[in-house]
Amino acid sequence: MLPQLKLDASNITDLLTEFIRSEFTRARFSRAVIGLSGGVDSALAAALTARALGPENLLCVMMPYATSNPHSMEHAVLLAEQLGVRTETVEITPMVDPMIATDPDMSNVRKGNIMARNRMIVLYDRSSRERGLVVGTGNKTETYLGYSTLFGDSACAINPLGNLYKTQVWQLARSMGVPDVIVNKAPSADLWVGQTDEEELGFSYEQADALLYFMIDEHYDDARLLEQGFDQTLITSVRNLVRQNEFKRLPSVIAKVS
Amino acid sequence: MLPQLKLDASNITDLLTEFIRSEFTRARFSRAVIGLSGGVDSALAAALTARALGPENLLCVMMPYATSNPHSMEHAVLLAEQLGVRTETVEITPMVDPMIATDPDMSNVRKGNIMARNRMIVLYDRSSRERGLVVGTGNKTETYLGYSTLFGDSACAINPLGNLYKTQVWQLARSMGVPDVIVNKAPSADLWVGQTDEEELGFSYEQADALLYFMIDEHYDDARLLEQGFDQTLITSVRNLVRQNEFKRLPSVIAKVS
Repeated sequence: MLPQLKLDASNITDLLTEFIRSEFTRARFSRAVIGLSGGVDSALAAALTARALGPENLLCVMMPYATSNPHSMEHAVLLAEQLGVRTETVEITPMVDPMIATDPDMSNVRKGNIMARNRMIVLYDRSSRERGLVVGTGNKTETYLGYSTLFGDSACAINPLGNLYKTQVWQLARSMGVPDVIVNKAPSADLWVGQTDEEELGFSYEQADALLYFMIDEHYDDARLLEQGFDQTLITSVRNLVRQNEFKRLPSVIAKVS
Repeated sequence: MLPQLKLDASNITDLLTEFIRSEFTRARFSRAVIGLSGGVDSALAAALTARALGPENLLCVMMPYATSNPHSMEHAVLLAEQLGVRTETVEITPMVDPMIATDPDMSNVRKGNIMARNRMIVLYDRSSRERGLVVGTGNKTETYLGYSTLFGDSACAINPLGNLYKTQVWQLARSMGVPDVIVNKAPSADLWVGQTDEEELGFSYEQADALLYFMIDEHYDDARLLEQGFDQTLITSVRNLVRQNEFKRLPSVIAKVS
């Protein structure tokens, strides 16, 4: 792992806990809602939020789809019990399937977006019922690679992880005591059996994070990235993803009239 | 109507048509998707988009819910036929009702948000299938009053109407030949029978637009607004709406870590 991406875990944990606490105070909210997938990002977001607001003020919602890996739910429950937070389970299958049925031949990507957006609907509805804020779980790696759904998993009021690369999420999760079974498993969007992020992306998070660090944080051009030892194919494919997904990071364009 | 809000309709129509054309060129898209509700905002957005891109490049999607007024659909069809655009109808009832069933006592506001967000899901799914961009239909009045759903009807790639007050949307729609039956009817979110925006808000769009013009565009404080003849109750309630809904106009807050 790139030395530049090593964190002072206890320091950053304090900083992010204080970020959550102060943003809730500023917005005059005391309760939070988080979608727990069973993966490491939402586990870390929940651990930080429970620490900041108290576990009694965090509602974790589990939202399995028919084809979700049953281990995902087990891991989410394990984490919620460890944190002592409130939980609710809302199956999204009855909402998702009628939508897929309107165009049954749709691609897996379209199905995945429908699932992610239905989970947003559940979280925002519950946050309205609870008078709470939705805390996001998206990390910097997936934000730059566009490996997220606009108005879906990326939708939130505040996001404590948005400036952490995936490999940094792992470090922090480990140091906060997130169970090994969650930290060590292969990351997956869990849209179909056996799916893993790294296989779908075609490179590892360790490679992506090192490259994104030099490309985004240090503004290296291709020549300097090649000098650092990165493969041209990897550079090109990551740069294309960063460009193609820029629209997800920008607000919509509104016409000026005067 | 406030003289300051009178538009040079033909000039603004040209400007907004050119805005749509240039934004699509810049984003390298040629096709658009719009949700047609039967109301005047989406009718105007569709008329402008059809003019900018050609009617063959616009897909208008009608998304009735079980309790939608049947006239809404008739008006949407009337407009689509006049413009000569492609249409598709996707009933949202089968997606919305299972979500409402997860908490059957939910308020009408929560139900309305679920409907608006399901329509977003349909539009973004169809835009993915079509390789098109979602064109928004939200006007400046509803944006400031927060009379819209975050990640619902406010979700779009580009928004031609975002800087037009409702009374200006009426002017422009009339001048572009949107049928009178659409322009002249009482605006309604159409969530339940007989609902009208103005009754729900407690004031008319003409009042709101005049007040918002002085409050937002001219930065008048309460003393100067009272001098202009606005009622203190109206001023307070509009200012509260503008403040309470500010979060919908701001991006989510991301923690800094370095």
